[in-house]
Amino acid sequence: MIIDTLIDKIKETENPSVVGLDTSLAHLPDDMKIGVRDTETAAAAILKFNKSLVDELVGVVPAFKVQVAYYEGLGVAGMKCFAETLKYARSKGFIVISDVKRNDIGSTAAAYSKAYLSGTEINGERFIPFESDFITVNGYLGTDGIAPFAEDCKAFDRGLFVLARTSNPSGAELQNRKLETGETVFALMGSFIEKWGAELVGKYGFSSVGAVVGATHREEAAELRKNCPHTFFLIPGYGAQGGKADDLAVCFKDGLGGIVNNSRAILTAWKKPEFAGLNFAEAAKAAAEVMREDLQKAVGLR
Amino acid sequence: MIIDTLIDKIKETENPSVVGLDTSLAHLPDDMKIGVRDTETAAAAILKFNKSLVDELVGVVPAFKVQVAYYEGLGVAGMKCFAETLKYARSKGFIVISDVKRNDIGSTAAAYSKAYLSGTEINGERFIPFESDFITVNGYLGTDGIAPFAEDCKAFDRGLFVLARTSNPSGAELQNRKLETGETVFALMGSFIEKWGAELVGKYGFSSVGAVVGATHREEAAELRKNCPHTFFLIPGYGAQGGKADDLAVCFKDGLGGIVNNSRAILTAWKKPEFAGLNFAEAAKAAAEVMREDLQKAVGLR
Repeated sequence: MIIDTLIDKIKETENPSVVGLDTSLAHLPDDMKIGVRDTETAAAAILKFNKSLVDELVGVVPAFKVQVAYYEGLGVAGMKCFAETLKYARSKGFIVISDVKRNDIGSTAAAYSKAYLSGTEINGERFIPFESDFITVNGYLGTDGIAPFAEDCKAFDRGLFVLARTSNPSGAELQNRKLETGETVFALMGSFIEKWGAELVGKYGFSSVGAVVGATHREEAAELRKNCPHTFFLIPGYGAQGGKADDLAVCFKDGLGGIVNNSRAILTAWKKPEFAGLNFAEAAKAAAEVMREDLQKAVGLR
Repeated sequence: MIIDTLIDKIKETENPSVVGLDTSLAHLPDDMKIGVRDTETAAAAILKFNKSLVDELVGVVPAFKVQVAYYEGLGVAGMKCFAETLKYARSKGFIVISDVKRNDIGSTAAAYSKAYLSGTEINGERFIPFESDFITVNGYLGTDGIAPFAEDCKAFDRGLFVLARTSNPSGAELQNRKLETGETVFALMGSFIEKWGAELVGKYGFSSVGAVVGATHREEAAELRKNCPHTFFLIPGYGAQGGKADDLAVCFKDGLGGIVNNSRAILTAWKKPEFAGLNFAEAAKAAAEVMREDLQKAVGLR
């Protein structure tokens, strides 16, 4: 099961973290932007950057998370770069999470799922344009908007991370509102996620249907950890957004329970004085190693 | 302001409806599928179908809604078809709503907004890959996930429809839950939407930041209509999903207040006995005219 594969890779690399390829031109060193004059050349430069990071991070991190928004902004050329980034990272043995936060009614969710998880058969061949091990989804539409994804997870060994408590400051506006039962909206969503993933629990006791739980809310994360024992967490918000290893440690038990994302601090490590003299990929690796060290201590993985 | 342009077009065509181009191969007549052997040829066939519908519906409907999920499923070729469908429909004078339900934290929402609303400047040229008049978005992440879109709406004269009460059966699971204040989740979202759109109210009293309100829930729609007086509704669920003109009439006042989507019944009108003898585009037009008639009576537009 894909959640087991992810956890095995986390154990292998002794690293419960994922590098976010939210790559935009602003993250690239100047010499990589020479010749960028349109979306095709921009997308080509970004792909080259991504591939170097993938190559450099073999054995250091178990997974990449690719944020589709940055690729959509470059249109068709960007989406081609997105597809090639996913493919390249998977070919190097990484687990790939497409951060797409898709959501819709059932029939449309099924169409989205084809794009990322299950594919379409044309002329006897199955085509999965943006093949991903996991995708992120938004559960505002309830069970029938998630079921098509979950069914494809079962049939094609994929996984989901459903938004529960997001890392952004305004996340609380809806998610922390209390229901008449006393339960918060994010806790209700957590209970939905446990249910949606009930048939996909693997050998470590975690389900391939996980939750997005921000690193920026210690007590809420602890509550979700307690009430969602089979739910693996994708944890954004570490670093640039202010989340600290000690805060997010509540998501873990015996070193397992989640995977922590870092995008900006890794992508732009080459800009930092402490990594002077390293190229962008080497700096990314060094930053990823610092993060690994920080997390290992906090979550007790080793 | 774009909401005024939309309402003007609704008045011109005397038709508060939008045709949904949720086009997949299954919607195409057999003779249009000859030669389809891969995603490129599939996308080309779908684009041809879409263009014929756009041509045929000039003067009949004010707008098209294009559901991106079906295009993402065909990968890069599909996204090119999506971009060309949007461009073609806009070139023929239609208002175009991209149904993308995007959502993320602020910085990522800004990246999405570039793809659809505001574009990116490369080499001194502004490039908007999937240029749309309106897009749909999901407000689960709260204000800072919506603000980048709303700011671009102001700067580039675009609009949004934020999910409030969706048309699918499971929509109620979260959206109809009561908060400790007695208010439902969808009502709270409605109040957010009124606030998010407060600076974008046009000459008819409606804002360019609207709401998605399913045609399948009469009382809830009536409540939202009452509490969100400046919010224009995008109303899915008519027809195939069971929504009736009489039920959704509560979204309107003096013939204004919303635009009703129909996808499947228009796309596949050519399959119906009552339109025998017409080609697929003529059948779509005939079906759109039946819908117009049905809505005109119910909402009192004429």
